[in-house]
Amino acid sequence: MNVEVAEYMDRMKRTKAKMAEKGIEVLLITDPANMNYLTGFDGWSFYVDQMLVLMDDEEQPIWIGRTADANAAKVTTWLFHENVIPYPDTYVHSQTRHPMDFVAEILTQIGQDKRHIGVEMDSYYFSAKCFQQLNNGLPNATFLDGSLIVNWVRIIKSPAEIMKMQKAGVIGERAMREGIEMVNAGVRGCDVAAKISHAQLSGTPEFGGDYPAIVPLLPAGERTSTPHLTWTDEPYQHGETVILELAGCYQRYHAPVARTVQIGQPSTNMKNLSEVVIEGLNACLDFIQPGVACEEIEAVWRKTVEKHGVTKESRLGYSMGLNYPPDWGEHTASIRTGDKTILVPNMTFHLIPAIWSEGDSFEISESFRVTDSGCETFVNLPRELMIKDGFANLDFVG
Amino acid sequence: MNVEVAEYMDRMKRTKAKMAEKGIEVLLITDPANMNYLTGFDGWSFYVDQMLVLMDDEEQPIWIGRTADANAAKVTTWLFHENVIPYPDTYVHSQTRHPMDFVAEILTQIGQDKRHIGVEMDSYYFSAKCFQQLNNGLPNATFLDGSLIVNWVRIIKSPAEIMKMQKAGVIGERAMREGIEMVNAGVRGCDVAAKISHAQLSGTPEFGGDYPAIVPLLPAGERTSTPHLTWTDEPYQHGETVILELAGCYQRYHAPVARTVQIGQPSTNMKNLSEVVIEGLNACLDFIQPGVACEEIEAVWRKTVEKHGVTKESRLGYSMGLNYPPDWGEHTASIRTGDKTILVPNMTFHLIPAIWSEGDSFEISESFRVTDSGCETFVNLPRELMIKDGFANLDFVG
Repeated sequence: MNVEVAEYMDRMKRTKAKMAEKGIEVLLITDPANMNYLTGFDGWSFYVDQMLVLMDDEEQPIWIGRTADANAAKVTTWLFHENVIPYPDTYVHSQTRHPMDFVAEILTQIGQDKRHIGVEMDSYYFSAKCFQQLNNGLPNATFLDGSLIVNWVRIIKSPAEIMKMQKAGVIGERAMREGIEMVNAGVRGCDVAAKISHAQLSGTPEFGGDYPAIVPLLPAGERTSTPHLTWTDEPYQHGETVILELAGCYQRYHAPVARTVQIGQPSTNMKNLSEVVIEGLNACLDFIQPGVACEEIEAVWRKTVEKHGVTKESRLGYSMGLNYPPDWGEHTASIRTGDKTILVPNMTFHLIPAIWSEGDSFEISESFRVTDSGCETFVNLPRELMIKDGFANLDFVG
Repeated sequence: MNVEVAEYMDRMKRTKAKMAEKGIEVLLITDPANMNYLTGFDGWSFYVDQMLVLMDDEEQPIWIGRTADANAAKVTTWLFHENVIPYPDTYVHSQTRHPMDFVAEILTQIGQDKRHIGVEMDSYYFSAKCFQQLNNGLPNATFLDGSLIVNWVRIIKSPAEIMKMQKAGVIGERAMREGIEMVNAGVRGCDVAAKISHAQLSGTPEFGGDYPAIVPLLPAGERTSTPHLTWTDEPYQHGETVILELAGCYQRYHAPVARTVQIGQPSTNMKNLSEVVIEGLNACLDFIQPGVACEEIEAVWRKTVEKHGVTKESRLGYSMGLNYPPDWGEHTASIRTGDKTILVPNMTFHLIPAIWSEGDSFEISESFRVTDSGCETFVNLPRELMIKDGFANLDFVG
């Protein structure tokens, strides 16, 4: 168990309060980060259906999942073993039966079939078919949208969570330093990705790393026109820009960070772009403090960069922390126009004022927590365009 | 582009034939492996909604996704740029609008709103909310379940695909050798995971690796009672069993493989268990040839091992190949009782007759393709329980 049981109990209590506000008596939790947050459940078993059943009048949730994964629930959670209910393997990727049929049967057996049941309607691991089968199997239940209930409970981190994110920051910083050090003309992207991944998983001599929810994003050359490309086995060319976006991860908590490397001297335009973006990033970090709304941060960014003719279509950042593939973002607050979420100490964000275009692209980011009077980044790296002068070594000393 | 356009056209044609059989006029494809299979689209953008719209009367599909990812569609696919339709970033993780509202508008604009529309009901990346919003936005459409249509088209691999899986096999073999070599008492799991991941991504001097759909699964000690745990930063102990399950991956194609390492001499029970499982695995591989049904392979396994008192609850294997997180399996054919899929040359499976228990656990697996007269494994490693005698070096020469 990675967290004290008292903290799990507090998380459950806050979740149940939110359920009550929405008139939800039973919440079916399929988001693996939410499952972990409430019980510690951890394992790469989210590729089959699994869930927590959180009932307003029961102290412990029930875990339902594949038989082979039941021991993972016993090993990694604080639940009593009788609250771990496995479904037979014949339900797995079957054309004739569905795990949610089993879930419906269990809910009926334990008298939950006529209740107001919340489901995470927009979770990766709750498919349209899952909802259809539950509807078929529980005709007397009233279904409500329970999306993001636990995600919003997660938005303010506890001291224990902040410590994990600080460790993730140490790992992320090491991984980024190793990646930047290696990027150069003639080096293959796959070898840089390998080096980064090694640093991410190995961690430090004091504590090891966990797998981040997203693999290193490493577009180079024309591929920097878009943020979510990974790598190829082509060697980098002199004159290319290489973007590195990655996270350190410790016990499922993330600290993402991005930097951009120019192989050879940057064009005047690229140099200007990087300076404007960094000016905008710094202005945001200076502005952030408790009481500020997310959209106000974006306004500071816009005001800073638009006088230089820079505009950005995509959001400037988002809440993040505990997560599983495919995303380290929490899908709650975003730093963008219209988001009125008010910052509170120990909210944690990834602020990523990146510009992707078919011309020059520049990406730089910081993960931070809101402190009592401002903010604090999890990673400490120079905020600059990293320049590799051709085949020479790096002029980057952190 | 990683595949000839003619091959994409053939894949489209076979998909359209399956659509016609099911009365589907328009198929909305959200499974990233299926999107890649038909167009080459590749990127870690599946954490936001995106899809291909495949219409029975149009030669090219339409790609719809986030604006920032539109250039990924232009860079990685064979689609005309006018077939790439981006939605604004305001739809991303928004509490007030949903990407499927945008999709419904586009389908209406292009006259597809009154048709028979297939959706991948049980795809990770098509949530219950996605389906609800499409239903709301397209009241005159008739929705049909288009689950697994493309997955079943994918089940027989082309020569180009087999070549990729062979490269994945080379990478998987290297990664497994490096992992086994490193496991020993006093070594941390996170460092073994790091070493494996480095080998997976770096690949070979001739071709680089891609990220596998599942990270290395590395349970040790009591954690071997369940298959899907990853690693910790605790050092392995003398006497512990360590299970390694991983895949090589090349251009999204996988070759998974599993082996088990015993640190110190195995118990008699463990030795017997490993011998029985290997006997069962070999019996299956000897039996496999075109014309055989999946369930017959399982019967050969069961007959071989049950005389030794070994039983296995979970399925024995599954079709696999092209994929993205969270699973390298294709969710079509499984090697288990009741699966009547008939083997055809160039079907590819992961055969994993593993036994997990709270006592001894043993995992070994092979990925194979069906040949004209039998089968051929993608990875070449000794089929044995790997024994590390305490702190000594490995008695394992591949």
